[in-house]
Amino acid sequence: MSGRPGPETRAAFPLFRSITTRWADNDVFGHVNNVVYYSYFDTVVNQHLIEAGCLDPLRSPIVGLVAETQCRYFSSVAFPDRVAAGLRVARLGTTSVRYEIGLFRNDDDTASAQGHFVHVYVDRATNRPVRLPEALKAALLPLVVGPPPG
Amino acid sequence: MSGRPGPETRAAFPLFRSITTRWADNDVFGHVNNVVYYSYFDTVVNQHLIEAGCLDPLRSPIVGLVAETQCRYFSSVAFPDRVAAGLRVARLGTTSVRYEIGLFRNDDDTASAQGHFVHVYVDRATNRPVRLPEALKAALLPLVVGPPPG
Amino acid sequence: MSGRPGPETRAAFPLFRSITTRWADNDVFGHVNNVVYYSYFDTVVNQHLIEAGCLDPLRSPIVGLVAETQCRYFSSVAFPDRVAAGLRVARLGTTSVRYEIGLFRNDDDTASAQGHFVHVYVDRATNRPVRLPEALKAALLPLVVGPPPG
Amino acid sequence: MSGRPGPETRAAFPLFRSITTRWADNDVFGHVNNVVYYSYFDTVVNQHLIEAGCLDPLRSPIVGLVAETQCRYFSSVAFPDRVAAGLRVARLGTTSVRYEIGLFRNDDDTASAQGHFVHVYVDRATNRPVRLPEALKAALLPLVVGPPPG
Repeated sequence: MSGRPGPETRAAFPLFRSITTRWADNDVFGHVNNVVYYSYFDTVVNQHLIEAGCLDPLRSPIVGLVAETQCRYFSSVAFPDRVAAGLRVARLGTTSVRYEIGLFRNDDDTASAQGHFVHVYVDRATNRPVRLPEALKAALLPLVVGPPPG
Repeated sequence: MSGRPGPETRAAFPLFRSITTRWADNDVFGHVNNVVYYSYFDTVVNQHLIEAGCLDPLRSPIVGLVAETQCRYFSSVAFPDRVAAGLRVARLGTTSVRYEIGLFRNDDDTASAQGHFVHVYVDRATNRPVRLPEALKAALLPLVVGPPPG
Repeated sequence: MSGRPGPETRAAFPLFRSITTRWADNDVFGHVNNVVYYSYFDTVVNQHLIEAGCLDPLRSPIVGLVAETQCRYFSSVAFPDRVAAGLRVARLGTTSVRYEIGLFRNDDDTASAQGHFVHVYVDRATNRPVRLPEALKAALLPLVVGPPPG
Repeated sequence: MSGRPGPETRAAFPLFRSITTRWADNDVFGHVNNVVYYSYFDTVVNQHLIEAGCLDPLRSPIVGLVAETQCRYFSSVAFPDRVAAGLRVARLGTTSVRYEIGLFRNDDDTASAQGHFVHVYVDRATNRPVRLPEALKAALLPLVVGPPPG
């Protein structure tokens, strides 16, 4: 595992949403199960899209399908910790968006876990890729950041 | 379904914990799935027990096993709503506790769902029922309320 | 808890579906979390409805909303156990159906948990109760059983 | 997304476990939510470890912590599909194991999703990395495969 990038701090993320952990998040080892981190990921992404008026889950004719996700786990989180989920946009493509997410335990300044989440936009009826809507690009532009310092 | 008790208000619950909904809570109908409400139930119960010093999930020699749960659903909740989970103790038995929970959507004063949750206390090693520890009874006594008006 | 009905056997259920447990089903005590049993419940109910042609999750104009669920836990189940979920219909009402479910661990003949699940049928667009469709009643009639012996 | 590896077939995986989907796996778009795929991943990994006698979740003094996971989604799966989860070991390190998983919908021969899952072995009490136990290496050796043809 040497050579993999280490955790970043809160300063690397322009937007945060607060998430409460749940009893059932913990697995038999007493820590939040690795699967649950991805539920935090798609919560912060979709919450921003809904709040920005870019996603109506039941009605939007154009929606993002998830193409790839990844998470690196640095230190554990456990119920009843609070999680601050930081969100940035690493790439605004023609038909896709690459989000990067950092999860911070309680008041920690260093991420417990980090990962990415790629949406490809499609026509809901045909499932065919479509160009990102202008309103979506406008909502995501403030979240675009350069790559973290190497 | 006639004759079943209707929803109560926040005044019927002495303690509240705030829970954030998640994208994955919603089912294909765009509302929080019926299963997830029980995750809110055992979150508010166990959060109170941990905060009161009555439960160390990995180490407590005496723990509560869930014997029965029930939920009545009155109106829907959907991500990204916030949930206020109200908790009361309806019965402090010799070896068991019956909790009652009300879930309130955002700032609503009337419950979207209500239910109960029964813990039977056992020795973690033998799984045999044991009397409720005194510290537990002390932590729960402030949550004991009479039955709701008939 | 005295006086509550004990577990029944497989003979009390006319239809079974097999469910595989998952690593994340287990909680910190090493057993399937109480919440997850309800996921087994709505899986067996909805699987039957879909297989019988009575539910198209994305398109059906009339759908069942969950009005009440309950589960009594008798003995634990743990990953990687298999679960046999038994289903019966306890009441076919005008606008609602009461299902009863028994969950059997591996090859056990006595239920580890039992509960009920009440669907109220509504128009998907207006959320107003509607009479059960005839095709649904026909699909459920073979699952109707009398009450268990008192 | 161009340039990313495409899906493989069942022949690329030496071991399979069957997983049943659940109603709650589906999200508002009517497909299994991206998060749930990771629950399939850690189910097939841990089921193999338990069946091979290499993991006792409540008692093993040496356990695998999840260091990194990734999933690429190629085509959708939806309840009530069955999933065949294929497992292989891409790298048996000194203190870590890299698993690769392919998820196949019903009888499909081409994967709907593929990903990896990295375990780092630690002493459960101290959380310090330890060398892979010999019994674990013996159980995983039959699953070691070379990299997929480039």
